[in-house]
Amino acid sequence: MSKLRVNAFSISVDGYGAGPCQDAENPVGLGGLALFEWVFGTRTFQRMHGGGGASTGSTGIDDDFAARGFDNVGAWILGRNMFGPIRGPWPDLAWRGWWGDNPPYHVPVFVLTHHARAPLEMEGGTVFHFVTGGIHEALARAREVAAGKDVRLGGGVATIQQYLRAGLVDEIHFAIAPVLLGRGEHFFGDLDLPALGFERSEHVATAHATHVVFTRR
Amino acid sequence: MSKLRVNAFSISVDGYGAGPCQDAENPVGLGGLALFEWVFGTRTFQRMHGGGGASTGSTGIDDDFAARGFDNVGAWILGRNMFGPIRGPWPDLAWRGWWGDNPPYHVPVFVLTHHARAPLEMEGGTVFHFVTGGIHEALARAREVAAGKDVRLGGGVATIQQYLRAGLVDEIHFAIAPVLLGRGEHFFGDLDLPALGFERSEHVATAHATHVVFTRR
Repeated sequence: MSKLRVNAFSISVDGYGAGPCQDAENPVGLGGLALFEWVFGTRTFQRMHGGGGASTGSTGIDDDFAARGFDNVGAWILGRNMFGPIRGPWPDLAWRGWWGDNPPYHVPVFVLTHHARAPLEMEGGTVFHFVTGGIHEALARAREVAAGKDVRLGGGVATIQQYLRAGLVDEIHFAIAPVLLGRGEHFFGDLDLPALGFERSEHVATAHATHVVFTRR
Repeated sequence: MSKLRVNAFSISVDGYGAGPCQDAENPVGLGGLALFEWVFGTRTFQRMHGGGGASTGSTGIDDDFAARGFDNVGAWILGRNMFGPIRGPWPDLAWRGWWGDNPPYHVPVFVLTHHARAPLEMEGGTVFHFVTGGIHEALARAREVAAGKDVRLGGGVATIQQYLRAGLVDEIHFAIAPVLLGRGEHFFGDLDLPALGFERSEHVATAHATHVVFTRR
């Protein structure tokens, strides 16, 4: 059964999933990079972004969680701000995502937006599809191409909240970073995850993050 | 220098410091006890509440944090709901706190309330003083009796937030419990701790909780 999963979703102690003032220089907002310190040193991240060889980066719990996020994933869904800093109509087609020519997805990625755009084929198997019909359409299309594999919901905060409230998320893994952000995209406060059926299925902490997985009954 | 400290303040992954619907049967609200599972097994808690001998309960990191909360504390400050479930004027003087005849404080405790009441002397050195003049008056009186020792701010959420916003808290220790509450007293979301000068001074996790201490510059 294909699941809709959130993996490696990093939040601060004070519940922020991104800092404020996202722009081209600050893809996860001011101060937001601190949320991801647990992942930067892992072998999974280093292989994908670091340009290191197969033996670069740490193994262990943090790496296992980072790696697990790519297991059995047939498609991704992203909110538009996860794709780029542009708001409103596309001024041109110059913006091709945060990741360069070869993004780390290697499968179809469905980007939620109010502004239509032709699919964008990148190197390495990633194809960005721009979905203007809302979260249900994006999930239906992602499930179709995933062909039995899971769909990973990458973020951001508002997109994950929408899918959670619609009762569509099966599993969510939080990596709690030992930092405060103070401002930005707050994840909790009006989101009742127990009422939505979530129960803890895993809990393990490292020196860099506390990993907690909640699964929907 | 006498500090105003928050110790062993337990929060859920989703940022709640207590569950909803506090009443006489649910001192920390519905589901709120799950926040404190990390402390119940510790030697410090067992000595204070468990009736066990000196060797009952676990030692180690969780116990160290529980014990540290009582070191060098000369007075406490509590919001009224930390003292009891009664709202509005005191109907009579029958309510004497959640803790029985010998509360675990053993020093003067200043209870913030809008409804005056004579001091209440308990066994073991605890004296509850009811302060109607607000947070600054409570802190001044607590500092005076603490005579150079620290003042511990016990909670609840609204009381700690008030002291934080007033710039009066020097140190706050969060114990993040690996649970969701979904509803209740939410601690974060409109509280910018970095802007208030807080920086992380400690981070260590156990199987039961993630401990993070923030200290004001």
